[in-house]
Amino acid sequence: MIITKENILEFEKLYRTTFVNSMSGFKSASLIGTISDKRNTNLAIFNSVIHVGANPPSLGFLMRPVSVDRHTYKNIKEVGFYTINHINKDIFKNAHQTSARYDENVSEFDECGLTPEYSQKLKAPYVKESKIKIGLKFVEGQEIKYNGTIFVVGEIVEIIILNELIGIDGYVDVEKAGSITISGLDSYHETKRITRLSYAKP
Amino acid sequence: MIITKENILEFEKLYRTTFVNSMSGFKSASLIGTISDKRNTNLAIFNSVIHVGANPPSLGFLMRPVSVDRHTYKNIKEVGFYTINHINKDIFKNAHQTSARYDENVSEFDECGLTPEYSQKLKAPYVKESKIKIGLKFVEGQEIKYNGTIFVVGEIVEIIILNELIGIDGYVDVEKAGSITISGLDSYHETKRITRLSYAKP
Repeated sequence: MIITKENILEFEKLYRTTFVNSMSGFKSASLIGTISDKRNTNLAIFNSVIHVGANPPSLGFLMRPVSVDRHTYKNIKEVGFYTINHINKDIFKNAHQTSARYDENVSEFDECGLTPEYSQKLKAPYVKESKIKIGLKFVEGQEIKYNGTIFVVGEIVEIIILNELIGIDGYVDVEKAGSITISGLDSYHETKRITRLSYAKP
Repeated sequence: MIITKENILEFEKLYRTTFVNSMSGFKSASLIGTISDKRNTNLAIFNSVIHVGANPPSLGFLMRPVSVDRHTYKNIKEVGFYTINHINKDIFKNAHQTSARYDENVSEFDECGLTPEYSQKLKAPYVKESKIKIGLKFVEGQEIKYNGTIFVVGEIVEIIILNELIGIDGYVDVEKAGSITISGLDSYHETKRITRLSYAKP
């Protein structure tokens, strides 16, 4: 069947949100850790983290419009650093719970049963329970004029990871790390590798 | 172990590319179909498609710097329309092959064994073999100044999908559709749903 934009605009709001959020396919599952100038920690689940560049190493994610208070983005702008932590099978329920609306002075670490952890190099909390932890320095926030979302880019400062997850060619086995993937807003999936393919030539 | 930015910058180039591309976790697997003003079709695999907004319905993806010729972006700007087609288990090898460097006048549809399909509404080719096909109108390209990549936003014009994939709440079962996920540059994974979780409250 063909569903047009006009059909989508006529959908009931929650149905539409669920439907359109399914369209991008499988998504990364990350917890973004931040801290405010006043030392309040914040932790939030994101499913929009993508690769931006390898040299210099950088990642991006999309923030919803900041017309309402977004603690994550506010902290990132205040402090200049944040962490991206892969969500694994053992913590996906805790991670999902961070999407509840907590007050700014409440830490999702406490409320959701996750443990903040700090490195010497970065002024932002990692998630101890995560197996792949990435520390980033904020470099750019590009507003999408179309709908007010913000594409946030950070440069990788450091990565905390088990050596055994890194392959001989540099590939990191995120499946072995137990990292999961999300579809829609609330569906969590584990993965099973089909294969790796070699570099394609005409 | 801790791997710093300085370590990463010292990695051999291909090792670094493979390593950093693993950091974003699992990614969507899409084929983007375009056509030039001269009616040359183009098809390219992307793993950076993400949700931008539900109302109006929109998706985004990241283009690498256009310092070299990027047929996909050139066509999108010329014609104003493109398609995003989910990659499923039956076509992931064909999809991977589109990443080879073909000349502009060669169609990846022909070279990679996939079939262009057109709807009445959209001036861009869909991939017949895909189970979830999305037609989009180009609305915005935001350059990331940090490294010259471009975040491309499109508004959904129409979606071609089997009715049976759409749940009662609007959730589209991308796993049932056979959509796959990618990690790193070349690792393909099928998925197994763990569960769906309900809307989180404090």
